[in-house]
Amino acid sequence: MKHFTKFESKSLADTLIEKALFYKANPRVDKALGEGKRIGCIFLNPSLRTRASTQIAAINLGMEPIVMNMDKEGWALEMNEGAIMNKGTVEHVKDAAAVLGSYFDILAIRAFPSLTNKNEDLADFTFNQFVKFSGVPVISLESAIRHPLQSLADMMTIQENWSKKEKPKVVLTWAPHIKAIPHAVANSFTEWTIGCGHDLTITHPAGYELDQSFTKGATIELDQKKALENADFVYVKNWSAFNDYGKIVSTDDSWMLTEKHFINANDAKVMHCLPVRRNVELSDEILDSKRSLVQEQAKNRIYAAQSVISHILS
Amino acid sequence: MKHFTKFESKSLADTLIEKALFYKANPRVDKALGEGKRIGCIFLNPSLRTRASTQIAAINLGMEPIVMNMDKEGWALEMNEGAIMNKGTVEHVKDAAAVLGSYFDILAIRAFPSLTNKNEDLADFTFNQFVKFSGVPVISLESAIRHPLQSLADMMTIQENWSKKEKPKVVLTWAPHIKAIPHAVANSFTEWTIGCGHDLTITHPAGYELDQSFTKGATIELDQKKALENADFVYVKNWSAFNDYGKIVSTDDSWMLTEKHFINANDAKVMHCLPVRRNVELSDEILDSKRSLVQEQAKNRIYAAQSVISHILS
Amino acid sequence: MKHFTKFESKSLADTLIEKALFYKANPRVDKALGEGKRIGCIFLNPSLRTRASTQIAAINLGMEPIVMNMDKEGWALEMNEGAIMNKGTVEHVKDAAAVLGSYFDILAIRAFPSLTNKNEDLADFTFNQFVKFSGVPVISLESAIRHPLQSLADMMTIQENWSKKEKPKVVLTWAPHIKAIPHAVANSFTEWTIGCGHDLTITHPAGYELDQSFTKGATIELDQKKALENADFVYVKNWSAFNDYGKIVSTDDSWMLTEKHFINANDAKVMHCLPVRRNVELSDEILDSKRSLVQEQAKNRIYAAQSVISHILS
Repeated sequence: MKHFTKFESKSLADTLIEKALFYKANPRVDKALGEGKRIGCIFLNPSLRTRASTQIAAINLGMEPIVMNMDKEGWALEMNEGAIMNKGTVEHVKDAAAVLGSYFDILAIRAFPSLTNKNEDLADFTFNQFVKFSGVPVISLESAIRHPLQSLADMMTIQENWSKKEKPKVVLTWAPHIKAIPHAVANSFTEWTIGCGHDLTITHPAGYELDQSFTKGATIELDQKKALENADFVYVKNWSAFNDYGKIVSTDDSWMLTEKHFINANDAKVMHCLPVRRNVELSDEILDSKRSLVQEQAKNRIYAAQSVISHILS
Repeated sequence: MKHFTKFESKSLADTLIEKALFYKANPRVDKALGEGKRIGCIFLNPSLRTRASTQIAAINLGMEPIVMNMDKEGWALEMNEGAIMNKGTVEHVKDAAAVLGSYFDILAIRAFPSLTNKNEDLADFTFNQFVKFSGVPVISLESAIRHPLQSLADMMTIQENWSKKEKPKVVLTWAPHIKAIPHAVANSFTEWTIGCGHDLTITHPAGYELDQSFTKGATIELDQKKALENADFVYVKNWSAFNDYGKIVSTDDSWMLTEKHFINANDAKVMHCLPVRRNVELSDEILDSKRSLVQEQAKNRIYAAQSVISHILS
Repeated sequence: MKHFTKFESKSLADTLIEKALFYKANPRVDKALGEGKRIGCIFLNPSLRTRASTQIAAINLGMEPIVMNMDKEGWALEMNEGAIMNKGTVEHVKDAAAVLGSYFDILAIRAFPSLTNKNEDLADFTFNQFVKFSGVPVISLESAIRHPLQSLADMMTIQENWSKKEKPKVVLTWAPHIKAIPHAVANSFTEWTIGCGHDLTITHPAGYELDQSFTKGATIELDQKKALENADFVYVKNWSAFNDYGKIVSTDDSWMLTEKHFINANDAKVMHCLPVRRNVELSDEILDSKRSLVQEQAKNRIYAAQSVISHILS
């Protein structure tokens, strides 16, 4: 693994999960590993958990994190090769990424999708331009189509909350939202859950079908009630339409999970990557109950990042 | 003391002042105390002194400070419990504060008042929601109604500049301003000055009466000239009306202190928390004279913060 | 040298270049030098390279850097002494700089010109107000009229790429741009190149004459083709008019360097401070060729800053 951008193999995932759980128990044990090394955390979009947890992970490993809010503190970046830069963009990613690559041992980058240019988003264009031109290992802090550190933390959380021998039944359910939201978390969660060998059912209203290149191996069940039956883990997430790209094709409030949705899944745990719109995506009732694993997931973000950075440094 | 949000007792104030003065003389002496501990500095509003001094204080104690400009780098926060989040707010303080609490050993938070919703401001609603949901010690970096780190630095500064046996006469005088300014500094200075046993006179034009729950024990004198007679320390500050909440009810330029105001207080020192609008709140003449303690106050902010963090860690 | 704001002497320049090259080979060798010292990096304008490289330089020397985006995170500053602050500015530089000077051992400041008030810009007014009121050593991170850390990195880069006995022929050529750009980089490069004893030719369309107080000792040649003949190093940079201050008086695309401009300078290296507008200032063809030293220059920014900070600390 040079870069950390997606699920690669079950064995690598298992290694990273194991290491993350080890760091959770022993956060400072590898304080010497990153000594004299620097990680540049580049944000093209807002961030709370990712921003803080990545810095903490780096510090736990003895590294020096430097944060750059590229959108606010730096220069507007041109992404297209060959562009004649006589408009709003001030610096080409070709130059900026190369400079950052020469300044840091590892780069970590957040680059959301446009949700308007499907081809560019599917190619993970902005993120991959950084990978292409920086010349150093790059960690995704959420790209147009994936959020692998979130998924790694999610897999840790499932493992910590599952002790039975059989596979857990994991359900990914679409939830209502008032804005058009990227597919990154849904894609990555699907990719990692299937890759880690769990049993995955995806449920959503018609029109919200995800990219089939991610969902192969999952059961698709458009009836939410059926999908939730006997669920062990229910991952709640909104996403905009993929086919009618970036659109909100319906907002059916009945899809918001409340306690009554769990009538046939009494022991199910509920997960969400946060930020969550309370009482729109998920009810207070659920989020404030013992079903909710959202705080565990958020806490695990530190150790997921620490595991990945450590793996790259080793 | 779990949180540091206000004046609690004279004995605690004395302890904190003494420790702050000790750190001023020995800034790095407790470098080992905060090793491996993290403080999250959360800003919902702009900051210069508070931002820098809190980081320096933490570093002096060996802690790792991480700064979050929540208003610019993170997500718009919902403060109201039970809210249906189908409008502009993206994350509930219930979730964000809990995550931050799980990431940091101490949180330090700045949350200005609205000056439009008196009840919410008086309840210190935003700040207290962080206290309620974070689960870790919280330090106020200025809330809707108090600015206790400023007041602690102010008390240090008075103590350093007063060697006589009798109590100093301290005067808090309203000053003109072009904007509606919060009551936090005036409230806190009043609370701490009275609590520390100094003799406090408050003077302001009619209509600028402060919240009576803070001013009990102070002498109110609406004639500024009389109030300033024989003053030892004159604290200059604007605030908006409290009764006609958040309004500018008059701007009488004659309230701006100049040298001629000190005809009956020849040795008086002048204090201000900064930022100060020169030649509106206070004349250049005063600020650039040896009456002015404003730079000492600002410098003491480092050691006030260091004392408080140290006390919480111990 | 107390402050680092401009070229002072060839001997100092040689010392700083030598030390910078030494640090490039041994970045962490002086880790103990800055222990317990703090540098405040104050940005009134955007920055990528300068922001990152200055922090890295400080960390390499064991110092603690704290970054302040004054324009976004702090208060709007008043620069004029005696101002009656009843408008948009919230804090006077007199107070802010003094506070920052009391908080940090060194300040590093970026303050771009207005390009509208020529007298203020020529006096380097904003930058010099910080110098005047802070009371500590100040490093320029680009002021209205100079960018000395860039020039120091440029001189390093020329030295690393020149092994012949004779002086290199250095050419500074104006390049097209769509915006009115400051003179700081052009001025400083001129000042340092002449000061370091290189042979400098400056070329630009009529109307783009630089401030004569910088260009004394340089050959001015308005015919770009002639100027480039036998060049060893070609520094490409846009600037707005100096006489018709801050204006774009012409944009002749033929001034953009492409490979065909090098017909009589086959071995010439090309330099630019970045950010560069590709295919406006400089063609992709040149930037992506082995002529280009722009990445070396950017990398050298770390060691230039490290050399200067080290010199001030010693």
